[in-house]
Amino acid sequence: MSAQQALSHASILLREEQGGVVTLTLNRPAQFNALSEEMLSALQESLDDLKQDETVRCVVIAASGKAFCAGHDLKQMRANPRQDYYEALFARCSRVMQAIVNLPVPVIARVHGMATAAGCQLVASCDLAIATESATFAVSGINVGLFCSTPAVALSRNVSPKHAFDMLVTGRFISSAEALSFGLVSRVAPDAELDEAVAALTASICAKSPVAIRTGKAMFGRQRSMSLEEAYSYAGNVMACNMMAEDAAEGIDAFIEKRKPVWKGR
Amino acid sequence: MSAQQALSHASILLREEQGGVVTLTLNRPAQFNALSEEMLSALQESLDDLKQDETVRCVVIAASGKAFCAGHDLKQMRANPRQDYYEALFARCSRVMQAIVNLPVPVIARVHGMATAAGCQLVASCDLAIATESATFAVSGINVGLFCSTPAVALSRNVSPKHAFDMLVTGRFISSAEALSFGLVSRVAPDAELDEAVAALTASICAKSPVAIRTGKAMFGRQRSMSLEEAYSYAGNVMACNMMAEDAAEGIDAFIEKRKPVWKGR
Amino acid sequence: MSAQQALSHASILLREEQGGVVTLTLNRPAQFNALSEEMLSALQESLDDLKQDETVRCVVIAASGKAFCAGHDLKQMRANPRQDYYEALFARCSRVMQAIVNLPVPVIARVHGMATAAGCQLVASCDLAIATESATFAVSGINVGLFCSTPAVALSRNVSPKHAFDMLVTGRFISSAEALSFGLVSRVAPDAELDEAVAALTASICAKSPVAIRTGKAMFGRQRSMSLEEAYSYAGNVMACNMMAEDAAEGIDAFIEKRKPVWKGR
Repeated sequence: MSAQQALSHASILLREEQGGVVTLTLNRPAQFNALSEEMLSALQESLDDLKQDETVRCVVIAASGKAFCAGHDLKQMRANPRQDYYEALFARCSRVMQAIVNLPVPVIARVHGMATAAGCQLVASCDLAIATESATFAVSGINVGLFCSTPAVALSRNVSPKHAFDMLVTGRFISSAEALSFGLVSRVAPDAELDEAVAALTASICAKSPVAIRTGKAMFGRQRSMSLEEAYSYAGNVMACNMMAEDAAEGIDAFIEKRKPVWKGR
Repeated sequence: MSAQQALSHASILLREEQGGVVTLTLNRPAQFNALSEEMLSALQESLDDLKQDETVRCVVIAASGKAFCAGHDLKQMRANPRQDYYEALFARCSRVMQAIVNLPVPVIARVHGMATAAGCQLVASCDLAIATESATFAVSGINVGLFCSTPAVALSRNVSPKHAFDMLVTGRFISSAEALSFGLVSRVAPDAELDEAVAALTASICAKSPVAIRTGKAMFGRQRSMSLEEAYSYAGNVMACNMMAEDAAEGIDAFIEKRKPVWKGR
Repeated sequence: MSAQQALSHASILLREEQGGVVTLTLNRPAQFNALSEEMLSALQESLDDLKQDETVRCVVIAASGKAFCAGHDLKQMRANPRQDYYEALFARCSRVMQAIVNLPVPVIARVHGMATAAGCQLVASCDLAIATESATFAVSGINVGLFCSTPAVALSRNVSPKHAFDMLVTGRFISSAEALSFGLVSRVAPDAELDEAVAALTASICAKSPVAIRTGKAMFGRQRSMSLEEAYSYAGNVMACNMMAEDAAEGIDAFIEKRKPVWKGR
């Protein structure tokens, strides 16, 4: 991309890195971090870069301002009333969501405020999600005459069908407690302790063997669509390879010797 | 159907319509609304009619008397002890359940009292379900030597396998609170407020764009069995078409202009 | 197997039978019942025997000592640092887990203390699981550099993806209450009442028609991977055959006559 684009992307999507934890912060607070074309491009580029980066251990997707993400940029959508534009837009958004799923390391949504429509899809697409107690979630496109079809793809792979469909046809907001119970988020933290909770989770992941985490994320996603027999055959081979890695030997020896393991690293 | 059949059906299955909301009421209270051949035929005919009716916005399945539905009519079954009879009966019942799934508009179970065996399957087959706090649910065929095989198909697509199998092999009753937690129902209401809760849900659906609701129900069901990539490709196309509908333009403009949308209708 | 093997197996895996309920007790308490090669062989042999035994009504998998099962035997694994050894080991373990799934009668995990790694997989692989209030569950291989890949296969078929993945990448322990809410176990009992709870569940299963229970377990597992239409067609045929069995006629007649059914037996 050109230098100017990079600069513009830098402003709408902040990137911080600390000890292998990369935080991408959606930064259009005045627009509730709407996923404009530019925001989706910035996310795609960052995810493409991270895919190549063997030093990264996990990724946090966070947001500036009062809300996590309000979904697509409705004004931009209405300014381009053409089917080919919408097809390209949803394809671009779907590519970002699948890039999260296919990233070699865990991706964590750090959710505060509201996460609606494609913003709720973003939470559903992450491997893990920590939300504040006051965070709320909705797939609210139905309120503007636009059923959240692509968000439904991610939502229905996390949440049981009746709960998902109720959200989709009514556009109603659910609480963090409901989101945890439904499986849309994996953890809930008091509002004032969100950063501590995210830090505890990323620290826990960073304390693990890098090769084991990367092996695990890839296998977990792939085995889900297999039959039980295929999944066991595949998982058994993956796990045997994992056992041959130096880190497994070191980890088990350390466990037996009651000491802390020293991972080889990537 | 003949006039006599229509009359007979009218008495076992009541139909009311108000503002696009069609309520079908199982009306064999003395038999706990058992799904006799006649009841299944009446349901199938009503669902076939509703499938063609573009004015209907959503369907409520309710029941008269003390119970929602006790499942198949055991006396009628025992009076016809032939395998071909049973095969035809279960095929007929399965066709009704799939007609609910394939209806173009949302179907809501309004559940009070008990919902057992194929009655529990009926709840599981609806897109949404609201139950009273005192409602109970069981797949209790196992108590009479008949494992609830066809109910298991619907149940296991709503409820996690251990909870579903526990219900199926023990025949035990679960409460509304458990049914909500398991995903068998989407909402629970105090006993005295069931009608208000159903009315609030149907009003919420009726306030939405008809084309968006119909688009959404069809796509939600179809995408579930697809791979993630296929599902996104399909959902993106559906959503682009939805954006080209007048209602989406009106809905988004109304949202931006902070006014109530006026839907075009069907 | 030889008499000496039988003896050695007898000591690490106890077998008790009472009224059709077979209890297999993992009996390496000093090793937290680790699934050594020998333990996996003993389990496989017992499950193969039980598969042929038409008098058995259900199987309980229990454990001696302080813990249910700590997973694979790490010392034995480290003593055999060869990929072919690990492939064979995980294949053997996967075969045991699938033998539980494919056993003709329900298998119940009786869980106290901790169930970790392949021990947690064992719980997930059973049809039903009753845990004490103080029991804890983890897929903790990641702590020793070994992502729980084969346990993930069973876990992710019980528990929603975000909850499963959180457990897998952090190795954290969850409580019985969480395990119940996630669907990893089907029931929780106070610590002092675990045996009563298991006895109540096995008694409930033993009070049912043997042919109906066996029919049900087989069909439940098979229909899960089918499309809705295929599943209904299959389940309808199974249920029609079940109706032709003497037990269904007896069960329904007894129900209508308000008396206790007398099952024909196997």
